[in-house]
Amino acid sequence: MGMVGGGIGSFMGGVHRKASTMDGMVELVCGAFSSNLEKSRETGKSLYLPQHRCYENFREMIEKESRLPEGERMDFVSIVTPNHLHFEPAKMALEHGFHVVCDKPMTLTVAEGKTLEKLVENNKLLFALTHNYTGNSMVKQARAMVKNGDLGEIRKVQVHYLQGWMTNELDEQATTKPWRADPSKSGVGGSLGDIGTHAENLVSYITGLKITEIAADLARIGPQRLLDNDGNILFRMENGAKGAMSMSQIATGEENDLSIRIYGSKGSVQWRQEDSTRLFVKWADRPEQIFTPDGNGIYDQVRAVSRIPNGHPEGYLEAFANIYRNFAVHLMATMEGKTLADPDYPTVNDGVRGVRFIHAAVESDSKNSAWVSL
Amino acid sequence: MGMVGGGIGSFMGGVHRKASTMDGMVELVCGAFSSNLEKSRETGKSLYLPQHRCYENFREMIEKESRLPEGERMDFVSIVTPNHLHFEPAKMALEHGFHVVCDKPMTLTVAEGKTLEKLVENNKLLFALTHNYTGNSMVKQARAMVKNGDLGEIRKVQVHYLQGWMTNELDEQATTKPWRADPSKSGVGGSLGDIGTHAENLVSYITGLKITEIAADLARIGPQRLLDNDGNILFRMENGAKGAMSMSQIATGEENDLSIRIYGSKGSVQWRQEDSTRLFVKWADRPEQIFTPDGNGIYDQVRAVSRIPNGHPEGYLEAFANIYRNFAVHLMATMEGKTLADPDYPTVNDGVRGVRFIHAAVESDSKNSAWVSL
Amino acid sequence: MGMVGGGIGSFMGGVHRKASTMDGMVELVCGAFSSNLEKSRETGKSLYLPQHRCYENFREMIEKESRLPEGERMDFVSIVTPNHLHFEPAKMALEHGFHVVCDKPMTLTVAEGKTLEKLVENNKLLFALTHNYTGNSMVKQARAMVKNGDLGEIRKVQVHYLQGWMTNELDEQATTKPWRADPSKSGVGGSLGDIGTHAENLVSYITGLKITEIAADLARIGPQRLLDNDGNILFRMENGAKGAMSMSQIATGEENDLSIRIYGSKGSVQWRQEDSTRLFVKWADRPEQIFTPDGNGIYDQVRAVSRIPNGHPEGYLEAFANIYRNFAVHLMATMEGKTLADPDYPTVNDGVRGVRFIHAAVESDSKNSAWVSL
Amino acid sequence: MGMVGGGIGSFMGGVHRKASTMDGMVELVCGAFSSNLEKSRETGKSLYLPQHRCYENFREMIEKESRLPEGERMDFVSIVTPNHLHFEPAKMALEHGFHVVCDKPMTLTVAEGKTLEKLVENNKLLFALTHNYTGNSMVKQARAMVKNGDLGEIRKVQVHYLQGWMTNELDEQATTKPWRADPSKSGVGGSLGDIGTHAENLVSYITGLKITEIAADLARIGPQRLLDNDGNILFRMENGAKGAMSMSQIATGEENDLSIRIYGSKGSVQWRQEDSTRLFVKWADRPEQIFTPDGNGIYDQVRAVSRIPNGHPEGYLEAFANIYRNFAVHLMATMEGKTLADPDYPTVNDGVRGVRFIHAAVESDSKNSAWVSL
Repeated sequence: MGMVGGGIGSFMGGVHRKASTMDGMVELVCGAFSSNLEKSRETGKSLYLPQHRCYENFREMIEKESRLPEGERMDFVSIVTPNHLHFEPAKMALEHGFHVVCDKPMTLTVAEGKTLEKLVENNKLLFALTHNYTGNSMVKQARAMVKNGDLGEIRKVQVHYLQGWMTNELDEQATTKPWRADPSKSGVGGSLGDIGTHAENLVSYITGLKITEIAADLARIGPQRLLDNDGNILFRMENGAKGAMSMSQIATGEENDLSIRIYGSKGSVQWRQEDSTRLFVKWADRPEQIFTPDGNGIYDQVRAVSRIPNGHPEGYLEAFANIYRNFAVHLMATMEGKTLADPDYPTVNDGVRGVRFIHAAVESDSKNSAWVSL
Repeated sequence: MGMVGGGIGSFMGGVHRKASTMDGMVELVCGAFSSNLEKSRETGKSLYLPQHRCYENFREMIEKESRLPEGERMDFVSIVTPNHLHFEPAKMALEHGFHVVCDKPMTLTVAEGKTLEKLVENNKLLFALTHNYTGNSMVKQARAMVKNGDLGEIRKVQVHYLQGWMTNELDEQATTKPWRADPSKSGVGGSLGDIGTHAENLVSYITGLKITEIAADLARIGPQRLLDNDGNILFRMENGAKGAMSMSQIATGEENDLSIRIYGSKGSVQWRQEDSTRLFVKWADRPEQIFTPDGNGIYDQVRAVSRIPNGHPEGYLEAFANIYRNFAVHLMATMEGKTLADPDYPTVNDGVRGVRFIHAAVESDSKNSAWVSL
Repeated sequence: MGMVGGGIGSFMGGVHRKASTMDGMVELVCGAFSSNLEKSRETGKSLYLPQHRCYENFREMIEKESRLPEGERMDFVSIVTPNHLHFEPAKMALEHGFHVVCDKPMTLTVAEGKTLEKLVENNKLLFALTHNYTGNSMVKQARAMVKNGDLGEIRKVQVHYLQGWMTNELDEQATTKPWRADPSKSGVGGSLGDIGTHAENLVSYITGLKITEIAADLARIGPQRLLDNDGNILFRMENGAKGAMSMSQIATGEENDLSIRIYGSKGSVQWRQEDSTRLFVKWADRPEQIFTPDGNGIYDQVRAVSRIPNGHPEGYLEAFANIYRNFAVHLMATMEGKTLADPDYPTVNDGVRGVRFIHAAVESDSKNSAWVSL
Repeated sequence: MGMVGGGIGSFMGGVHRKASTMDGMVELVCGAFSSNLEKSRETGKSLYLPQHRCYENFREMIEKESRLPEGERMDFVSIVTPNHLHFEPAKMALEHGFHVVCDKPMTLTVAEGKTLEKLVENNKLLFALTHNYTGNSMVKQARAMVKNGDLGEIRKVQVHYLQGWMTNELDEQATTKPWRADPSKSGVGGSLGDIGTHAENLVSYITGLKITEIAADLARIGPQRLLDNDGNILFRMENGAKGAMSMSQIATGEENDLSIRIYGSKGSVQWRQEDSTRLFVKWADRPEQIFTPDGNGIYDQVRAVSRIPNGHPEGYLEAFANIYRNFAVHLMATMEGKTLADPDYPTVNDGVRGVRFIHAAVESDSKNSAWVSL
C-alpha cells in the first residue's frame, strides 16, 4: 500500500494506517503524505519507511512506483486527502494500473465520479470506498437478515447522522474555518458530503435498495456559513418504500450518532453506531431480540467478521479494518485469478451514487425541497 | 364530570375515568356512554352511577343536566368518542355553559375547530384537549429548560411517533377495519390524526414555538387502505428552526414509540415515551445528564407534578391524570374567581392547530410534498 | 376498606389510597388516620369521609365498625403505619373477623408474626402483605417463565436494592432522625426491613424457592447510626442454588434501584424496577429477548394484569394497585364461597419469612457473617 | 518482543499480537509459539518471522536471544500460555535480563509470585500483567475521579464478572474439558483465576484501595466439575468500605459482563465492559452524568488515551493495546534513563495480590465462608 495524504497530525491518515494493518494482510511501503516534502519524509520516518519512498506528491509516487518491479512496488494506493484531492490521484493511479482505496465522498462532481467508474471497469481494477460503517458486524447482520427475507418486504427507513462539533466552532472561530466548511475543498455539500453520504450508503448497503428520488431542506447555521451543516431529507426507494434522513453538525452535544431503523412487513432492525455491538430486532409476532457480534443466532458469514469472541466489544477501528481486509482478500484472490462471490465492500459505483446524492440534495434544496431524481 | 362515550369495552373510556379520578379531585356523576341505552346503563351500573343519570345520548345528558341545580349537576363534559363524534357534543356542551375535556384530534374540520374556539372565548369556558403526553413530568422539565433558556436558541427538532399495530391488522382482516382507518369516522387523516397531532403538539408544547409550514410525504400501506398509516414530514418553525417528523402505524414491532429530540445552541434534550421517566440532556460543553422525575436538578414546578418520590416510576395513566388535575385545578380556581398564571394543559387553540396540521399535511401530500403553510 | 395510619402528609397513606381505589373495586369507608383525632378527621374530610367514621385510634375503629351491620361496615383493614404499629392493629382486626392488608415488614418479631399467622389460619381470614414490586407485570412474567420451566433449573440469583437518600440525611440532620433509623420504631433491621425484605420476597416470588440460610455483613454509615443502612448478604436456596444480595440507603445517587437477575440452566431473566416495563431474557442458545407488558410472547395470565395496551408504561402505583386488585378479587370470591387457584399476592406466610430474614441477618452480622438458617 | 505461546488457533495469542502492534511501538521479532516445533514455525511463518527465530520452547528462545547483540535481540518477553506455564518462562526471562509482559493470573502459587516480585525488584526490570480492562479509558476516568476526590470517601463497591459459556460445555462434553477447568493447568481457582482476579484488580485499580479480607461461597456446577465456575464473595477494604463480588461462567446467556459500581460519599460511578464507552456517574446533589472517551469533562490524561475522536467507539483490542502502549512507553523511558511519574499498567505486585486473592477465596470457601485475610 502507498498512501496519498495522512501526514503527521492528520486524523484520517492514522485511522487508515491502523485499520489497514490490523490483520497483517496489508503493509505500508510508500507514501506522499504531505504537499510539504519535509513533512512527508518526517511522517514516513515515524512509520519506519525508507526516505526514498516518501514522495513529494502523488504524481511522483505513482510514476516512480510504477517503474519498480512487481512484488517490490506498491499494489494499491490509499487516498486519504480532503475531498477535492481525491479525483486526480485516483485517476492517475487507475491509469497506471494501481488498485485504489479512497476516502468518501469520492469526487466533487458526478462527471469525475463517472470517469473513475469507467477507468475501473476498463482497466479491470479494484476500487474500495471507505464507507467504514458498513464494516460493522451488526450492520452486516442487518444486511444478511434483509437479504434472507427475515424482515419481509422493506417498507420504511429512518436514518440520521447527528454531530454537534460545529455548534460552537463556527461561532467562535469563524476565521479558522475547517476545510469541511470550505466549498473549494469540500465540494457543493458540507454535512451532505461528510456524513450524509455515509447515511445514504448505509441505507443502500443494508436494504440492497437504491434511493430513487429525494426532497431536501438544508440549513446553514452560524455566521458566514457557506455550506450546509444541517438538513432533513425525504426519500423514496426503488421498491416504493419511503424514508426520512436527518443529518447535522450542529446537533449540540451529539458525538457521532449515526442511527438507522429499517422496517419490513415481518420485522425491523435498529442500529446505532455509538452502541455498535448491539442490533435490535423487533418482530410483528415475537418479542424483540438483541443480536451481538459472534453471539447466538448470527449468520455464519457475519460471525466470521469478528476478531474476538462475543462480549468483547470491537469498535470503529475494527469496522474500518474490515473494509481493508475484505478489499485485501479480494485483491489477493484477483491476483491469483480467482473470483469472489461477494467481496463485500463499497465500490466505485457506490462512490458515483454518493456524489449524485449530494448534488441532488443541493438542487432540491435550491428548488424549495422539490423532488429530484438520483 | 359527565362522560360522552366510553362504554364497556372502550379502551379510552377506562383511561379517562382512571386518569380523571386518580387525585380525588374529579368525580364521575353521569354519562352517555353508548348510543345503545342499555349498554350505557350497564356501563353506568358498573361504575356505581344511579340509572337516571345514565343517558341515551349526549343531547339528553346535556339538556337534563343543565336543568339540575348547581352543585348537583355535572360541571364539565368529558368527550371520549371517535373523532367524528367530538364536535357536536362539544359544541352543545359549550352552548349550555359546560366546560369541556375532549379527546384529540378535536374536530374533523378546521371550521368546526374555529367554532369551538369562538364558543370557548365568548362563553368564557375552559376547554382541555387530552394531548396526554404533555402530562409527563420529563416533558414538562424539557419545556421548562427551553423556557428558561438553558438550551439556548432552538435550531433543530426531530420527532417520531412509531407504532406497528396495523402491520398485520389490515392485511389479514381487511373486512373488520378499525374506525381509525375509516375516513367517515377518523377524518381526512389516519395516522396524522391518531398520532401525528400528538407529535405536532409535543413539539410546540416543549419549544413554545409554532410550526409554520410543512412538506409531507404520506403512505397508505396495505390493501384497500384509504387513509395514511405512515408518513414523513419536513417542517419549519416560526423562529427559523427546521425539523423532521416521522409517524407510522406499520412500523413493525414498535409499540408506542413517541420520541423527540430538540437541539438548541447550548444544549439539547431527548425524550422517549416508552422510557418516560428519563430526560437525556446533552450539552455543548459539559457531559450528558439524565434528569428523572423528582430527581436532582428538576425545576420546582416540575417536581410538584410527581405523585411519588424519585425512582418510583409513574406511567401513562399518571401523565394522563396530570391533564385532568391541571384542568381541575384551573376549573376550581375559575369557580372561585381566581386567575392562574400557567394552567398548563392543551386547550382549544391547540385543538385548532392540530386540525390545521392534519389538513395541511394531506394537502401537501396531494401536491407531491409541496410546502403548505399552517 | 378502613385505614390505620396514612394521615395528611404521609407518603405511604396516599399511595395505598390511590392504589386500592384505582380499579373501582375497593372503597375507603373509614379510618384511624392519626393518633391525633383532629388530624384524623381532617384527613378524612379531605377524602370526603363522614366525620363519625374518622376514628381516634384503631381500637375505636375496629370496635365500632364491628358493631355496624354487614354491608355497611368495612370489610377489611389496611395498615400503613410505621413498622412497630403493625402488629397490634393487625391482631385486633383479625380477632374481630376483619381481613387485613398490611405494609411490610409485617412485625418487629418472629413471635408476633407467628401469632398473626395462626390467627389468619384459625379465623379463615385473608391477609395481604404489600410487597408491591411483585405486582409488576414483568415480575409476574419472570415468575411464569420459571414456573413453566423456560429457564431450566435455577442455579444462581443476584439481587440488589440500592438507594442513596440517607447519604446526606444522617450526616447533616443527625437530630431529626427518620423513624426508619430508630430501632424502637423500625425494629432490629434498618435497610434490612425497609428494602432488604422486598429483595428477599422478590427472590422467592419469582423463583418459587425459599432462602434457607444467609451470611450477612452489614454496615452502619454516618454518625450516631444505630441500624444498618447498607449490607451485603450471601444466601443459599432450598434447591442448592446460591445467591448474593446487596442493599443500601447510602448508595449515593441511586434513587430506587431494585434489580434482580436469575440464572437457570437454559436461560436467565433480568429486571430493574426503575425500568420496570422491560424484562430482559438471555438464552443459552438464542439471542437475548426483551419482553414488555402486553407485548409479544407474554403469558396470558400476565397479559391480563395490564390495564393499558403495550407501549404505554405502567408504573409504581399500578403495580401497587395489582396487590389490592388481586386481594379484592380473592376477597370477593371468598365472600361468594368460591376458591381461587392462585390468588397471587404476598400473604402472612411471606410476612413471617420476612421477619425471620431480618433477624437472621442481624444475627449473622453479629457473628462476623457466620451462616444462619432461616 | 518475543512471544511464549500463542500458536495458530490460540485466541489470546492473536489478541496480544494485535494489541501490542496497534500503535507501531512494538514489533514481534521471535517466538516460541508452541510446544510443537513445527506448529511454532508455521505460526511464525504466518507472521512473516524468519524461521530461525521460531523456537522450540521458551528455554531455547531466551538462551539464544540473550546471546544476540543488543538492538537485535528481543527487548521483552510476552507470555500468553495457560496459567501453569507462566512462572517458568517469566522467571527465566527475568533472570536473563528480559522485561516481561505476562497474562493473568500470574502464577499458580503465592510463593512463585513472590519469586517473580523479588526478581523484578532485584534486577530492576519491568513487568506488566495484562489485566486488560484497566486499559479502558472510562475505567481510567473513574480512577482519576476517585483520585481527585470527586466521589468523596469510598464506602461501597459492587462488582460482578458474569459469563455463560460453561453453561452447556461441561454438561454435554464432559470429556473434552477446557484447560481452564483442569486444576493441573489452571491452578486452585477456576473462575477465580480466569475472571475473579480481573474483578479484584479492577476494584483496586479504580479505588486505589486494597481488599484486606474476603468471605467466599463458591460453586462447582455441572458433572465432574473440579474447580469453581461460580461464586459470591463478600469483601472488606483497607479504608473500612465493604463490597460484594459475584463471578460466574455458568450465568446463562451472559457474554462477558464485567460490571462495577463504586459508591463514595459525594458521588458514584458505574461501568460495564460490554458498554465500555460510557461511564455513568451519579451524584448526591446533581443529575446523573454520562462520560464518554474524549468527551466533555474528561480528565486530560484520560483524553490522551483515546486514539480516535469522541463518538467513535474503541473496544477490547484498543483497551488491551493501552496496556502494551503504556508498558512500551515506560520501557523506552527506562532505556533512556528516564523516570515516569505514573506508568499506569498492572505490575508484578498486582500479580502477587491476584494469586493471594485466589488462594484466600478457596480457603474461605473450604471453611464455610469464614473471613480470610489477604
